[in-house]
Amino acid sequence: MTVASLSEDALISQLFAPIAGAGSLDLRDDAALLPAPAGSELVLTVDVVVADVHFFRNDPPGTVARKALRVNLSDLAAKGAEPLGFLLALSLPKDTSLAWITAFSEGLGADARVYGCPLLGGDTVRTPGPLTVSITALGRVPTGYMVRRTGARAGDILAVTGTIGDSALGLRLRLAERDAGSPAGEGAPQEAGWRDVLTPAEQTHLTQRYLLPEPRNAVALALREHAGGAMDVSDGLIGDARKFLRASGVSGDIDLDRVPLSAAVHAAVEAAPELLLAAATGGDDYEVLCSVAPERFGAFQRLCEGANVPVAAIGRVTAGDAPLTVRRDGVEITVEHGSFSHF
Amino acid sequence: MTVASLSEDALISQLFAPIAGAGSLDLRDDAALLPAPAGSELVLTVDVVVADVHFFRNDPPGTVARKALRVNLSDLAAKGAEPLGFLLALSLPKDTSLAWITAFSEGLGADARVYGCPLLGGDTVRTPGPLTVSITALGRVPTGYMVRRTGARAGDILAVTGTIGDSALGLRLRLAERDAGSPAGEGAPQEAGWRDVLTPAEQTHLTQRYLLPEPRNAVALALREHAGGAMDVSDGLIGDARKFLRASGVSGDIDLDRVPLSAAVHAAVEAAPELLLAAATGGDDYEVLCSVAPERFGAFQRLCEGANVPVAAIGRVTAGDAPLTVRRDGVEITVEHGSFSHF
Repeated sequence: MTVASLSEDALISQLFAPIAGAGSLDLRDDAALLPAPAGSELVLTVDVVVADVHFFRNDPPGTVARKALRVNLSDLAAKGAEPLGFLLALSLPKDTSLAWITAFSEGLGADARVYGCPLLGGDTVRTPGPLTVSITALGRVPTGYMVRRTGARAGDILAVTGTIGDSALGLRLRLAERDAGSPAGEGAPQEAGWRDVLTPAEQTHLTQRYLLPEPRNAVALALREHAGGAMDVSDGLIGDARKFLRASGVSGDIDLDRVPLSAAVHAAVEAAPELLLAAATGGDDYEVLCSVAPERFGAFQRLCEGANVPVAAIGRVTAGDAPLTVRRDGVEITVEHGSFSHF
Repeated sequence: MTVASLSEDALISQLFAPIAGAGSLDLRDDAALLPAPAGSELVLTVDVVVADVHFFRNDPPGTVARKALRVNLSDLAAKGAEPLGFLLALSLPKDTSLAWITAFSEGLGADARVYGCPLLGGDTVRTPGPLTVSITALGRVPTGYMVRRTGARAGDILAVTGTIGDSALGLRLRLAERDAGSPAGEGAPQEAGWRDVLTPAEQTHLTQRYLLPEPRNAVALALREHAGGAMDVSDGLIGDARKFLRASGVSGDIDLDRVPLSAAVHAAVEAAPELLLAAATGGDDYEVLCSVAPERFGAFQRLCEGANVPVAAIGRVTAGDAPLTVRRDGVEITVEHGSFSHF
């Protein structure tokens, strides 16, 4: 059974209405309706993911849905915003199976509940191209409290949540497996040097982080309270740090040895030291990079850790408009490509 | 030159930042920021259009952009909402020319100004599939005043704005031209019977209405003041009327002879009477169908006409859950497919 056997109305009423929130009017009207939150500003973001560009065609459909939502939640988190809800625009090839779209809607519904970000509305169309998911998320901040990219100030500490590089190395493992045409454990010769030192659990950790990032919505309040500026790290830590500093009209430095790594990435870097740069320039971290005044950093870190999100100081914001300085083992290094570009 | 020669950042800063509104933060942050309008509810809608499904690959790019925005504006209009802004999710094939995307952004910017609906944010990705545009529009209504699909009541007059069927016949002309592989004036034998009675200006009127609908945002206030319920007519008048009445838990009747037609559609129907049903079931009208209590209808009509939007009574809402009755020349007729489905 494919989606071709269902009308758009049936698809919506059977699969999406059950996971929709109060403002959705059961997805039966032309539009969603939501009270404008008093004393607030609205924070709005949109992200598109395309099969075979941003995810693998054979990824579990529930994780495709959840990642599509989570990359938007990550933008809201970095801005210090609380989620209000989202709209889903889905372009489906006609051979999409009902099983696929059912699992997709279930994954989406599960994350909508976990993150308190209900489905408010959507549109579903047929496409002759790859399956494409566009999600627009809506959040709120108390008026004047959105944490901007332009807020880094000389003297601030540069900090990052969670760990960096898991997803980039997870993607390399998945690409190697795909290219080798065989499941993990065989094939993938080009990554074998470091992959083989990882335990199976560590390998799974990396590939899972690619499939399912953990947006840091738990630190939205801490960011609003203490961060001068922030952005989400989606295109590679170093490239994103350059964007952050440029937007703020400042310079800065990052010490690669202080970039927080998971045990799996740490083990991989021990085996293949060049992977540290791959970790710091790969995409899909969905962590938060922020700037915090030194006198606030302790309080910020405690609030984050109280929310179960580790945060690490990785560098400093400095005056001027010189390019970001990157150091490793105390030595300044040159980083050509700081970002991964999906485009 | 194609978009492949530009980074996503360059595309955004050169083509989209110049047309963006105040809340966009120059498209340089992770998200847009908008004051939550006091005393209001937010009205949210999203629509996707796909090349070769919803528009022709060789349509003028400015009209593709404008139609993608206008179909969303039409949803806001039907709900009685004032536009606040929109987010754009754009999936581009790598061979998209810079000329195409430049004309696209110019068309979008022109309509954003005309309709007071600024670009607030977006995402641009590469796709191996057809060019796909997803627009999420945000509007506001005074709290409690959104005009719903569920608001039709027995005794109300069913009314529709503008004229019906122009776009459906315009699409038939364009399909015939395409299939005949020749420009208008030659080919298109299957529509020749009625096409040939139309003046060139009338033919252009029809094809233009398909390319560029006129959303009825000018009557949003009149709808809030006087309509019990409303929806936008996008998938065919009769099918949409059925949805409207079903959502409201009522029945009703429509007199096809009262459905407002442009001079072009009128002439076509004179030549080929079966086209009246094609007009009343074809898609892409983007007019507003609404229900208005009889004692309010005069005031409603005056407000609409004051806004330069004609409105016509086409039937009645009745009690019960019987299917919509459709009459022509006083005789009840059966309509199998009341809607055009893009899906």
